[in-house]
Amino acid sequence: MRFDLESASQLLRRTPATLRALLAGLDDGWTHADEGEGTFSPFEVVGHLLEAERTNWLPRARVIRAGDPGATFPPFDRYAHRRLHAGRTLDDLLDEFAAARRENLAEVASWGLDEAALRATANHPEFGPVSLAQLLSTWVVHDLGHLAQVARVMAKRYGEDVGPWERFLPILRDRPKPAS
Amino acid sequence: MRFDLESASQLLRRTPATLRALLAGLDDGWTHADEGEGTFSPFEVVGHLLEAERTNWLPRARVIRAGDPGATFPPFDRYAHRRLHAGRTLDDLLDEFAAARRENLAEVASWGLDEAALRATANHPEFGPVSLAQLLSTWVVHDLGHLAQVARVMAKRYGEDVGPWERFLPILRDRPKPAS
Repeated sequence: MRFDLESASQLLRRTPATLRALLAGLDDGWTHADEGEGTFSPFEVVGHLLEAERTNWLPRARVIRAGDPGATFPPFDRYAHRRLHAGRTLDDLLDEFAAARRENLAEVASWGLDEAALRATANHPEFGPVSLAQLLSTWVVHDLGHLAQVARVMAKRYGEDVGPWERFLPILRDRPKPAS
Repeated sequence: MRFDLESASQLLRRTPATLRALLAGLDDGWTHADEGEGTFSPFEVVGHLLEAERTNWLPRARVIRAGDPGATFPPFDRYAHRRLHAGRTLDDLLDEFAAARRENLAEVASWGLDEAALRATANHPEFGPVSLAQLLSTWVVHDLGHLAQVARVMAKRYGEDVGPWERFLPILRDRPKPAS
């Protein structure tokens, strides 16, 4: 196991500033590009990360913390941002994501998690028992997956403009990934 | 064609700050992770981007600018950073990359490029005539490809820690890409 709470927190703390450095003030041509029907633009990725902050990671961690291993997580709607963020600006969503992430990390830190607490489990609605350490690891990997997605979506915007260099740029051939 | 100099510059300007927000001060466990033999760690990606700033993009653009369509680009050693940056710190490389990128963008801006200048060509050593617009587009896509790589490499560090969530995290199954 590579997971530890300190190194996971280091990464989780950096995601809002990373997305802000990359996306704040960019033209809509960049921030609203996507990979076709059903895929997320960078704007939507930020909205999805914000909603996950509000209704996925901490609500699920609290279910595990409540101590009943028979309990099941509340569902997470991975498309909720489409309903909730119509007409919002990317700058607002970046601010709200940063604030929500900060609060969530403060709450996790306040728990003073030890090894036993990280091994505690509850049930994922689709695949059964998962531990708090697995949930927190997934939080990190989910961030990084969506950061890679943002880079990929924006790279493809210039897919035809690179001409013969296309063969040296494998990111242009990476397929869209399903939302998670 | 989606490329235009203003939108390309917006992106190119943001890459150093994005990498700094993500990587500065992170544990070596994150910044020196890689995907196995021959692949780059995040530390190496920053070094590679720095060397490309010094010996790839602008030197090649200057060849095109010199006006001889029969000229061929100087070679670029995509592993030069391994020789040059042993013992350096990531913070130093991030600073040098930011400075080199700033200078290069200032030089490109000083050229006052018009449509004809962007259509000018020289020869790539492997695939022949390429235009300045294609070179500048490739500069952008190369940044984004390496940003996606950094995210992928770090995500895989927790590949086993996520447990059954692995099936929902396609980034963990993405293969290493050859350096470019």
